[in-house]
Amino acid sequence: MSVDSQPESDVFIIGGGVIGLAIGWRAAQQGLRVVIADPEPGQGATHAAAGMLTPIAEAAYAEREIFALGQDSLRRYPGFATDLQASTGLPVGFRHSGTLQVAYDTDDLAALAETRQLQESFGVHLQQLSARECRDAEPMLDPSVRGGLLAADDGSVDPRMLATALLQAAEGAGARLVRQRVTEVVCTAGRASGARLADGSMASARWIVLAAGWQSAGMPGLPPGIAPPVRPVKGQIIRLRTTPAMTASGLPPGLLRRTVRGIVRGSGVYLVPRDSGELVVGATQEELGPDTAVTAGGIWELLRDARTLVPGITELEFADAVAGLRPGTPDNAPIIGLTELPGLVLATGHFRAGVLLAPVTADTVAGFLSTGVPDPLWRAFAAGRYGAGSQAAARQPEEEAACR
Amino acid sequence: MSVDSQPESDVFIIGGGVIGLAIGWRAAQQGLRVVIADPEPGQGATHAAAGMLTPIAEAAYAEREIFALGQDSLRRYPGFATDLQASTGLPVGFRHSGTLQVAYDTDDLAALAETRQLQESFGVHLQQLSARECRDAEPMLDPSVRGGLLAADDGSVDPRMLATALLQAAEGAGARLVRQRVTEVVCTAGRASGARLADGSMASARWIVLAAGWQSAGMPGLPPGIAPPVRPVKGQIIRLRTTPAMTASGLPPGLLRRTVRGIVRGSGVYLVPRDSGELVVGATQEELGPDTAVTAGGIWELLRDARTLVPGITELEFADAVAGLRPGTPDNAPIIGLTELPGLVLATGHFRAGVLLAPVTADTVAGFLSTGVPDPLWRAFAAGRYGAGSQAAARQPEEEAACR
Repeated sequence: MSVDSQPESDVFIIGGGVIGLAIGWRAAQQGLRVVIADPEPGQGATHAAAGMLTPIAEAAYAEREIFALGQDSLRRYPGFATDLQASTGLPVGFRHSGTLQVAYDTDDLAALAETRQLQESFGVHLQQLSARECRDAEPMLDPSVRGGLLAADDGSVDPRMLATALLQAAEGAGARLVRQRVTEVVCTAGRASGARLADGSMASARWIVLAAGWQSAGMPGLPPGIAPPVRPVKGQIIRLRTTPAMTASGLPPGLLRRTVRGIVRGSGVYLVPRDSGELVVGATQEELGPDTAVTAGGIWELLRDARTLVPGITELEFADAVAGLRPGTPDNAPIIGLTELPGLVLATGHFRAGVLLAPVTADTVAGFLSTGVPDPLWRAFAAGRYGAGSQAAARQPEEEAACR
Repeated sequence: MSVDSQPESDVFIIGGGVIGLAIGWRAAQQGLRVVIADPEPGQGATHAAAGMLTPIAEAAYAEREIFALGQDSLRRYPGFATDLQASTGLPVGFRHSGTLQVAYDTDDLAALAETRQLQESFGVHLQQLSARECRDAEPMLDPSVRGGLLAADDGSVDPRMLATALLQAAEGAGARLVRQRVTEVVCTAGRASGARLADGSMASARWIVLAAGWQSAGMPGLPPGIAPPVRPVKGQIIRLRTTPAMTASGLPPGLLRRTVRGIVRGSGVYLVPRDSGELVVGATQEELGPDTAVTAGGIWELLRDARTLVPGITELEFADAVAGLRPGTPDNAPIIGLTELPGLVLATGHFRAGVLLAPVTADTVAGFLSTGVPDPLWRAFAAGRYGAGSQAAARQPEEEAACR
């Protein structure tokens, strides 16, 4: 095959995490010929994600634009989950049961009040709960919890189930999975035109979508200034489990009725219950490069904070602990859209919000791939916002960039 | 086959933990025809054991007789390990690097002083270390450690390696492993004469050795009063690991030079380093029946106490966590020897000391099986010491008991 001939596919997606798989599914649904390349789909950041769908709670740390994008994506989730389940018959563990943010001591309560102010400045009005009301809402909370904020619209999903369903749905819609690492993006006549795979073979496509999470930054073959500035931010989570006997005795599966996010003596922790009885506790945030070791300190810190908020977790079975690498960006916002290199679409840098942002990312990227018209929602997330390439997003994709 | 005919083997051992395997090996070495039955050899209490060889440290909680038996077994360990390695070529991780017992606060120091008194009353003189000397001996100890006692003769072994080597050695010496559960001890003419296996088949033997750990108590087929009074005592351990980079930077493999046992605010914890870089942290003690769930609370407690003594453990990789069921007895001492039922030898109830006591148990049981003469060391550990069957040990094995 020659990269100069007719491309083998319309879209070649580098990366089979929740973002790449969702784009592949949506693009294939629109009749595009899709290839997704990943040696281990769903085994990166997705595998270590808790699956919180909490744009409001996330807004405490982020910008208005990320919040708005998250809200938009959350609104798409019921349809996304229903469509996915209808296509595959597989569950994705979607729950629409809200988030309770709680504060443990007086300082934590002050931090929570600041969160509330910020959230209200975004036009979101959360229900403020007294200590008593927190315990009424979640009887397993420690009596010391000082107060909380209830975001009733938040949801959660099981990222491992989601990835499994997305892969099956994408393949069902005609996408092809190549279980190989991409070793290089290939450019022809100043345009991204294909990819070289680990076995040395080449694949050509009209569009290359780079959705390789933190590894997008180091993707070989891109002209200078094109690779997105993502870095690995390590996160460790643990998965606990209520036993059938506990559930039979009246405890909710996973001990809680909804996601609980807490500030415990200044340290953030979240607990996400699932219908299966699983309770995911996360997450550390560590800047250690591409290190995925689960550490004694990570587990200890998570158990310490989770136990402070919900003492009953000590009785739960320890299922496992994993570490993943989230794709962090300089401003914590994702990078979605075009670059100076024609033929390339970026969909990476989703940091802690990849699962939440999968529907909006997939819909808008698949829409662009069908129509050629960039989505207005991308504006705040353009690759060019980081300086050197800051004009890139404004240019037309057909303009040429220096290509290796 | 009929159980009345010539027995198929000399010894049929029920249980392939470290005790059953060691007996099988030693008995086979003496030319006896040995069968060992276990569906999963080495996967019970042995799998969750830390492998401390610390009779002196254990003496803090135990009786003089157990201490003496442990001392005796520890003296046998170098030969046992050497012989095992020579027979199999497999390592067992034997180290002879001592134990440092440390105290964290003033109350813990008082408890350690009591330990010392008890140990000295047994005629053991340990080296008393100041806080400074503790840190000189183990630089990774927290500066708050108040003082310690050094038992230079103690050792450690890797129980998983030990079980693997013992199984290979036993088979190499002619023993046969049957990977099946024993469903019943079979008696003929008032004598234990064989065992029924899970597949319904029967095996006959001159001697039946019951070495099934906590499950020995419920072994079907035994006349009333014969089954040993063992109960499951759950223990959770975690295994951490130093990385090659840490070792390259001068840290000892497993962070420590020797086993450290600590009392931390009244709670006991131990840390056992291995040459491989592994650091085993144990152990909980829980009376929950036959429950082997690893729990969030168990892991949290171990990490909390270990981290208090050795803060550097937070950097270690978390390898795994397991729970095992130790065979506890009413007086925490093992049950070794004969019962009122001729043909039956008990070797169980080793509680926390199965790995330590394997050599002396194996040598004395194999000696008896060859000679028919009970070992004088068994006297304090006779099955009959618990009342109802208290005359049993004094009787000759040929005397008859009521047999089902």
